[in-house]
Order: sequence, then C-alpha cells, then structure tokens
Amino acid sequence: MKALLIGRFQPFHNGHLELVRKAASEYESVIIAIGSANLSHTQENPFTAGERYLMIQKALESVGIRNFSIVPVPDINRYAVWVSHVVSLVPPFDVVLANNPLTKQLFSEAGYEVKGTPLYDRENCEATNIRKLMAEDRGWKSFVPHAVACVIDGISGIERMRCLAESDKTAD
Amino acid sequence: MKALLIGRFQPFHNGHLELVRKAASEYESVIIAIGSANLSHTQENPFTAGERYLMIQKALESVGIRNFSIVPVPDINRYAVWVSHVVSLVPPFDVVLANNPLTKQLFSEAGYEVKGTPLYDRENCEATNIRKLMAEDRGWKSFVPHAVACVIDGISGIERMRCLAESDKTAD
Amino acid sequence: MKALLIGRFQPFHNGHLELVRKAASEYESVIIAIGSANLSHTQENPFTAGERYLMIQKALESVGIRNFSIVPVPDINRYAVWVSHVVSLVPPFDVVLANNPLTKQLFSEAGYEVKGTPLYDRENCEATNIRKLMAEDRGWKSFVPHAVACVIDGISGIERMRCLAESDKTAD
Amino acid sequence: MKALLIGRFQPFHNGHLELVRKAASEYESVIIAIGSANLSHTQENPFTAGERYLMIQKALESVGIRNFSIVPVPDINRYAVWVSHVVSLVPPFDVVLANNPLTKQLFSEAGYEVKGTPLYDRENCEATNIRKLMAEDRGWKSFVPHAVACVIDGISGIERMRCLAESDKTAD
Amino acid sequence: MKALLIGRFQPFHNGHLELVRKAASEYESVIIAIGSANLSHTQENPFTAGERYLMIQKALESVGIRNFSIVPVPDINRYAVWVSHVVSLVPPFDVVLANNPLTKQLFSEAGYEVKGTPLYDRENCEATNIRKLMAEDRGWKSFVPHAVACVIDGISGIERMRCLAESDKTAD
Amino acid sequence: MKALLIGRFQPFHNGHLELVRKAASEYESVIIAIGSANLSHTQENPFTAGERYLMIQKALESVGIRNFSIVPVPDINRYAVWVSHVVSLVPPFDVVLANNPLTKQLFSEAGYEVKGTPLYDRENCEATNIRKLMAEDRGWKSFVPHAVACVIDGISGIERMRCLAESDKTAD
Repeated sequence: MKALLIGRFQPFHNGHLELVRKAASEYESVIIAIGSANLSHTQENPFTAGERYLMIQKALESVGIRNFSIVPVPDINRYAVWVSHVVSLVPPFDVVLANNPLTKQLFSEAGYEVKGTPLYDRENCEATNIRKLMAEDRGWKSFVPHAVACVIDGISGIERMRCLAESDKTAD
Repeated sequence: MKALLIGRFQPFHNGHLELVRKAASEYESVIIAIGSANLSHTQENPFTAGERYLMIQKALESVGIRNFSIVPVPDINRYAVWVSHVVSLVPPFDVVLANNPLTKQLFSEAGYEVKGTPLYDRENCEATNIRKLMAEDRGWKSFVPHAVACVIDGISGIERMRCLAESDKTAD
Repeated sequence: MKALLIGRFQPFHNGHLELVRKAASEYESVIIAIGSANLSHTQENPFTAGERYLMIQKALESVGIRNFSIVPVPDINRYAVWVSHVVSLVPPFDVVLANNPLTKQLFSEAGYEVKGTPLYDRENCEATNIRKLMAEDRGWKSFVPHAVACVIDGISGIERMRCLAESDKTAD
Repeated sequence: MKALLIGRFQPFHNGHLELVRKAASEYESVIIAIGSANLSHTQENPFTAGERYLMIQKALESVGIRNFSIVPVPDINRYAVWVSHVVSLVPPFDVVLANNPLTKQLFSEAGYEVKGTPLYDRENCEATNIRKLMAEDRGWKSFVPHAVACVIDGISGIERMRCLAESDKTAD
Repeated sequence: MKALLIGRFQPFHNGHLELVRKAASEYESVIIAIGSANLSHTQENPFTAGERYLMIQKALESVGIRNFSIVPVPDINRYAVWVSHVVSLVPPFDVVLANNPLTKQLFSEAGYEVKGTPLYDRENCEATNIRKLMAEDRGWKSFVPHAVACVIDGISGIERMRCLAESDKTAD
Repeated sequence: MKALLIGRFQPFHNGHLELVRKAASEYESVIIAIGSANLSHTQENPFTAGERYLMIQKALESVGIRNFSIVPVPDINRYAVWVSHVVSLVPPFDVVLANNPLTKQLFSEAGYEVKGTPLYDRENCEATNIRKLMAEDRGWKSFVPHAVACVIDGISGIERMRCLAESDKTAD
C-alpha cells in the first residue's frame, strides 16, 4: 500500500516529520505532494517548491527514511478538476492521508480511500506560528528539523521572510 | 426581444425562479448565464456548473417555462474583456437584465441596453442566508423550488456543504 | 438513461442532426457538449460557441426534439483532467456517445460507459468539406438543416469564412 | 544609465510626476512599467492599462519630459518568475527604482541594482485617498496633473468610479 | 485622428519603417502594438517584446519621428475577445491600419474603422526572408534600419538566431 | 556539484538510463526534471508525469542508483521566463546537462553553466522509434529498462498507445 500526503510545507517542520515517519513505517512508500508549488515570496508561502523539496529531502535523509517520493503540485484553482490534476502528477497511490475536510471531501467524491491524520491538523496552526517566529528570527530552529534550518540559512530565508513581513506594512 | 440574465445561482432559489418567470413572460426568450462556472466546492460556490444547470432546468420545467437557454460561463478575471467573453459563449440577445452596478457598467460601456431587476438585488442576500441554512441543514427547502431540493438531495449536496463549512474552521 | 454527446459542430450539419435524433429517441435526454467553445474565427473553427448554441437549438426545435441540453465546453488543453472538466460543466449523464478513439479512451480510463457512434466518425470528414463549400459559398445549404442556414445567414457567416480563408493565404 | 520604475498608476498623480521628473533628470531614460495591466474596472484598479498609458504620456508631454518609455505589464501571479516576466517586456535597464520591499527583494535576488524612492512609498497612501475623492467627485483634481484630469474626464472616469463604489455595497 | 498599427516586428525592418513614417505623417499619432509580446526565442519569434520595443524606439528616433506610442500586446489565443484585449492595453485610437484579413475582420465585426496597408502585406514575406538571412548572418543589415542592427548586435541576436535554427534540426 | 537533467522521458529508455548512470557517478546528485509534465495521452506524450516519475524511480532503484531527485515540470509556453520557472520548481543545482540547443541557449543567457550530453541527442530519435514500436507492440521491451516495461504493462500503456495511434487517423 502506498500513501499520498499533501501539504504546503511552509516550512517542513517537526510535526510534518513525525507524520511522515509514522506513514513511512506503516506504508510501503509515502508520496509527499508539495501543494501550491507555484507560490513563493509571500508571508503565507515564503519558499519556492524547489526550496521546500530540498528541505523535505534533507530532513528525511537525515533520519534515515528512504521510502518516499516528493512531487511539487502547482495550484489549479478549480476544485472540480483538482483530484485529476494531482493524480496525473504523482506516482500511483492507494490511500490519501489528509485531515483538511475539503481535501477529504474531494478525494472521497472521486472514490479514493481517505484516512485522517489528527496530528496533521494541529500542526497547521504551528506552521503559522513558526513563520511568525522566523520573520522575527526568534527561536524558530527548535520547531524544524536541523536539516531544514540549514537549508533555510543556506538560502538566506530569514532575511527574505523579514522583507516579506515589511512588504505587508506598506501600501501597494 | 431576447434577454440575458447572469447569476451564480448558488443555489437557484425561489427569488431566481420569480425573476425568470417574469422575464420569460415579457421576452421572446431568456438566456440564463451561469456565472463563475469554473467554481465549485467552496462555501460561496458549493455546486458545479453542471449541477446548477440541472437545478435550473428542472425548476423551470416543473413550472412549465420553456423559452429559455442555459449557458455556463467561466470567470475570465479581466473585466475589460468580460463582455466579449460572455457574448461569445451565449446565443445572441437584445437586452441585459442586471442589477449589479459593475455588470450594468460593463455592458453599458460596451453599448448594450441594460435593464435593472430590483428583485434580483435583494435575493442576493437571500442566497447567502440560504447557503448558511443549507450548511446546517435547517429549513432551507422552503426557499428553493422543490425540483432544486431534489437535485441537491440527489448529489448529497448538504453533506458537501457541511464539509465545506468545516474546512473553513481548520487552518490550511 | 442520459447520454452525453461531444462535438465541435462547426457547423451543426445534417449528420449531427441524425445522430441527435437517434440518441434523443433512445435516451431519456441528450446532453450536447459544444467542444472547443473558446475557439472561433479560424478556418477550422469559424463560429463562436454562442453561434453554435443557436444553430443546434434552432435545428432541434424545428424538428420537434425537446429532450436535450446544450453546454459549451472550452478546451482545457490537458487530457489528464479533461474528463473531470467536462463532467463539472454538464448535467449528470449515464453514457458517453463517441467515436473518436481518444475521447473513448479518456472516458473509459475514468470508468464511464462509452458507446460508439459509427455515423459520427464519417460526418467529421463531411464537416471539413462543408466548411470548404461554405468558404466558397457553393451548395453548402443542402448539407445543413434549414434552421442552421438561417442562423449562418443572420450572422453573415459566409462572409466571415471567406475572409478567414483569405487570411490563410497571407503571411503573418 | 537607464532606470526602471514600476507602479500601478491608478491614477497617475502629482507624486508620480515628481518621481518621474527627478528620475528623468538623473538618468539617461526612465522606463515606466504599468503594473497590473490586466486589471481595470475595480475600485482598486479603476482604469485600463491603455487609459493609464495615455494619462502618463499626456502628463509627461505637458511638462516637457521626453526621455521615457511606457510599458504595460500584466500580472503573472507567480513571484518566482515575475522578474523574468518584467525583463522580457521592457527595454533593457540598469537600475530599478522601487520602495516596495517585495519588489526590491525580488530584483535583488535576481542580481539587479535596486534604489529606494522614499517619495514613492508615501504616495501610495495618497493613491487610495485620491481614488476615494474621485469616487465622490470631491477635490481630486488638485492631486493629479491637469493632463490626467482631462484624460479622466474624457473617458467619463468619475462616473465609472462612482459605479464601482456602488458595486461594492451590493452583494454578489 | 490616431491610428493603431499591429505587427510582430520580428525584426522591425525597413518596410515597417516606411509604413510608420507614412502613418506618422498622415495621423496625429501612431500607436504601434507589438503583437505576440509573450513569444521569444523561437525561429519565428526570436526577440522578446522588450528587445523589439527598443528596436522600434531607436529606429524612429533616428529618423526624427516623435508622434508614436509603443505597446507590447501578449497573445490571448481567443479571437472572440482579442479586440477587447487590444483595446484595453493601448491608448484610444480612431482607425486601425491592417492588411491581414483576420485582423480586419475582427476589428470590423467590433465596429472599428479599418484601412488597408498594401505595403504591409508584402513585407511580411520579407520578414521571413530577413530572419533566414539573420540566422546565416548573411547580408541582413541592408534590410533593417541601422539603429535596429545596432540593437541586434548589442544583444548578440545573431548568435541566438543561429542557435534557434540548430534547435530545429535536433529531435525534441 | 549537483547536475540538472531535463527530458520528457516518453518513455524513460535505456539511453536515458545510461545518461543518468554516468551523471550520477560524476556528480554529487542528479536532479531529473520531467518536462512537459502537463502533457499526456498524445502520441508524442503518451504518459502522465506521475507515470513517468514511477518509471524513472523504478529503473534507477533497480540498478542501485540513489543520488537523484525527480521533479515534474509543466510547460509554461513562454521561453523568456522558462529558466526561472524550472529553477523555482527544482532543488538548487550547479550545472545543466543538455544537448538541445534551445535549452543550452536559455540557460546560458541566464548565466548558468551548461554541459553537452552527446548521447542524449541521439537517443531522442530513439524515443520516437520506441513509441512507434510500442504503438504496434513490437519488440519495444529491449529498448527500455525491465522496470519501465513493468510499469507500462501495469498501466495498460500499450493499449493506450494503440488507441492514440488510431485517434490520429480519424478526423476531429
């Protein structure tokens, strides 16, 4: 059995890592879809899909997980075709791991088996908090895998996030 | 004289039915454009264009109205070409029935005759309320034609709306 | 049982009419999807979706067929999501009537019942020939329903096609 | 040295004029990119790119500035490719004049020299106020060059803005 | 009276210059729309819109023509809304100068005055020949204004075109 | 040093495998970008990005290569922003391995180091031949890794290709 796990991973944090670790031990392999792959350089979506790909890859390699695939998935902004869109971009899977009610609804309507990930829901709130800490460069490193922190430092990610936070304060 | 009537019809309710009934009696035929045809599965736009097409068709047939055409019109997200976009998708018409000031302005700038539909404006508020009742499955059936209620039941529409309402409460 | 029939209908000709007549007698209703609804003003696709909508509606009304729905469907240029795209725009259906191998393959892969329409294939060649005759304004009226010829005359369709044919001869 | 200056210019007002005047005296030429060129007919973006082009051209001609180029730039809604998008549409330039932190960040990441325009930031607030005054047709003419006021009058711009303001008050 | 002239200008050659010179002397001003502004780096469309903007600007300045505006216009790939698209991007105009039958047909259908430019048609063939000579770096400079040749040299345009010509010979 | 390798991989064949094997031994890691990820179900592009992802992954695992990343990259149909598009979707890289002159030109213009892959060019012709053999189900298995043949069999790939070949023979 192969599992599909969809997230934005802005950034990939400890909650995500636990989620993948659990799935990787329960399933033959885990396909990690990076949602909103087209978005970057906003406060909600600071990192490019390529940067997030590297964060996930480094974090999983550092803890010895190997049975995963990573696939960036751009938004299609049309829910009625979104499942087909995802399915065409990722390797075949048997079950969807999701807690977002819309994701669950869309895959269920399309006939897929969907399993909840209680952990996943809570961490979403965490992501917003972590981004807030990052923009202020305060204590964020304890919430993300060490490998992720290295990637973020390597791309001057904190500087970018501080700049994006400022952008919000100026009128357009 | 043929009249064009544009709405989102999320869902097609009694106010819409009265509006079409009046137009169908005054004009040779009424072209009903389903706006935002690309949207579905959101709280504001729960139903697909195809589902809305069926609601309208069933509701009008059930009251014996026959002189109408239904045309789904996807958003083009660029007002300067929106009138051309609509015109290219619907059969020819002579007058636009609208109360939304932007719709009136755009068709007027393009040289079309536009007539207000006082009724229409009020019902828009109704649509929001009806969707709220639907998401809670409370008393909504008295606000929509019986045929529409049947269509919504047939596609498990209330279940979908309840799920979409929940989606809003969880962080992304 | 409701049947879905997809075509470009450039223009809607006698072969199409026979096809719809047969389907309308065999099925509860026929959903006629106007493909490539976004295209017009080319030699292959001279008419807008709205113009084609009117042709089909007038032709079917003139022979007393009533159990049909017409739905313009723009191209999405991505076959992997095309079936979802069509499904979201048209009212629900039970079977697809098609002869184009790709259409059959895509709907089959998506789990739909598909039935061949031998007639349909042959008429496609006819459509090309009819357009050729139209661009030269030679004897085309015997290949289309009278109601269609009236629509085409009403929109100065032959003049447009003659112009499009010329366009092809000049370099861009 | 050629300078690139990006704005939405909804409308082009006295603050913009001062900014261009200063840049035109300091640089060989100034390329004025009209951002969000695809947007019009909203309260935030009332004028089309073509209308804004005319405002800028008339305003600069009226004060004798000649060393400028105007280029409409549609949104691409993807920051990671936005710089390439702008660069492909405008003539070559040496420095970017910007005060918006995101614009500065994106061009800096792409290796361009970016210079702040303190004036520019403040005027953004002005633009919102000026649009408010315009929608109420109160005292707005003292905030824009005379040539711009003439263009706006010539296209019945105030009437459009009043209509857009109303649109906001009615539900969709 | 203001005239609109649409072309791809790949590259802007002597035939174009004559055409603009004539129009600039007959009309109050000439709006030069750079079509297919989104295309570049193909054999048919080697130069970006920004590069073509610079060619035109330099060529006209070098012969003292001043009453012109240049506007890049991306393709919209939908003829039914193309006129609205162009109109929204360029300053207001009174007459369209065109010889391409489709351009003439579309603007005529939309109610604009269209005037033929016999010269323009012939030069289109020239453009293809000039591109061929450029890809082989043979005698092309006699067909374009000196200012255009300088721009092309400045961006290593011939090297790019030679490379694009090679690209065609290798399978994808 | 990390290398980027871009291809369509329709299908991933022995030539591709050799290419990746060589790159994987020479570089720290190889990023394999699946181009035209949006295309499928055509004769030129029979397989979805997800199917191609699985082919590549299985083939490389079967020969023990581990230092690679796979990234689907949809077409953006605008060469001037294509490099930025690719860069935003893939993990960081140091050198581009390419033989297609356009790919080389675009990455060179953007300042990237590009290295030729003589092998790669030749195999492109192979890909066309292999697809032809596949559509006829004749001897194609000797040209692709065993793991790829298994994937293709598992998705009924040959049946799909036979159908696509037929589609070409019928008029649209």
